[in-house]
Amino acid sequence: MNVFLLFSGGKDSSLAGLILKKLGYNIIAVNVSFGVYPFYKYAKHVADLLGYEFMILEMNKELLEKIIETIIKTGKVSKALNLLHKLSIEEVIKRYDAKIIADGIRRDDKVPNLSISEIRSIEDRYNVEIVSPLKGLGYKTLRSLVNRYFIVEEDYSDRIKKSDYEAEIRYYMKLKGIDIYRYFPRNHKQSRVVGLKNQSRGGSSFFR
Amino acid sequence: MNVFLLFSGGKDSSLAGLILKKLGYNIIAVNVSFGVYPFYKYAKHVADLLGYEFMILEMNKELLEKIIETIIKTGKVSKALNLLHKLSIEEVIKRYDAKIIADGIRRDDKVPNLSISEIRSIEDRYNVEIVSPLKGLGYKTLRSLVNRYFIVEEDYSDRIKKSDYEAEIRYYMKLKGIDIYRYFPRNHKQSRVVGLKNQSRGGSSFFR
Repeated sequence: MNVFLLFSGGKDSSLAGLILKKLGYNIIAVNVSFGVYPFYKYAKHVADLLGYEFMILEMNKELLEKIIETIIKTGKVSKALNLLHKLSIEEVIKRYDAKIIADGIRRDDKVPNLSISEIRSIEDRYNVEIVSPLKGLGYKTLRSLVNRYFIVEEDYSDRIKKSDYEAEIRYYMKLKGIDIYRYFPRNHKQSRVVGLKNQSRGGSSFFR
Repeated sequence: MNVFLLFSGGKDSSLAGLILKKLGYNIIAVNVSFGVYPFYKYAKHVADLLGYEFMILEMNKELLEKIIETIIKTGKVSKALNLLHKLSIEEVIKRYDAKIIADGIRRDDKVPNLSISEIRSIEDRYNVEIVSPLKGLGYKTLRSLVNRYFIVEEDYSDRIKKSDYEAEIRYYMKLKGIDIYRYFPRNHKQSRVVGLKNQSRGGSSFFR
């Protein structure tokens, strides 16, 4: 059974995919892109490494403008990222006729996050399943699972090469001359998966 | 790494254990018992079947009296079962020096359930991890996973042979001549795992 996994190449969506793969699902990693900068290539590398199929979900540049407008208007990224996450799920359903959609949202995540009623509303309207395998796991459990399975690179948001929602939003805001540090924290550590530890596959594999 | 799993022998706690086992944990299934009636034997059968270690967490009969008092006072089982779940987690931590405690709570469960702040409070006070692997899964996803891995027997609460919190509470309330249908629904369907489908082990195995 196919699961369409919203995928950034970071450790959370990578681990969500790993859990679902172990449960017998076929993982199709979907990376959201507005076509402004090809950040998706980092997600694709990780998807290849983990043995997930990979697709780019190209979203409208007008939506990106609207997302940035919302960030500036609300002064925060939370509402905009939640909206984008919800729209991404709906786009995956409509475009690929997806029946099962997964994400890497954790128990302690504030953003992006959907309420149980928002999730159920999407499930009922489209007759689909939404699965968040990390939703019952705290940061300690996640840290130990990530260490068990992945080799991870950590760095600050500006330098890390990964392709989450924020990457392209920040990039485009900078292009437009907006001071992104009014909205995004300056020293926010991010991470991405750069290798798989050997217990998950035949041998350890790296890429940089 | 050992995970102490609060375990009834039903499909939810069985599946929670299966997911954690696939992630490399050693499962110690813990069944709560007040020593009134040996319902634990049903949980033990399922634990044996699934390859989980098994322990009985014997709880004080005074606690059972208090639980029943709470049910009668509040007119509902929800508050009492939440209290019992929380106390069970704390007892597992104290008695077995457990570092990781898991349960089979689902996304759509109302009872038993702990709020995120209650969970974090226990995690911080005792320096432990609490893991709910089914917390991000809806009923459709659970149904398809249960069907993929388990052979399940379904029946009404009164007839099913399993060992969740309710079994002994209902039994003891009946012994005391209390009309349990003032508090528990009469036609509530329950289920327990009676076999494993062959993809999870060498062959399919049954017990009745």
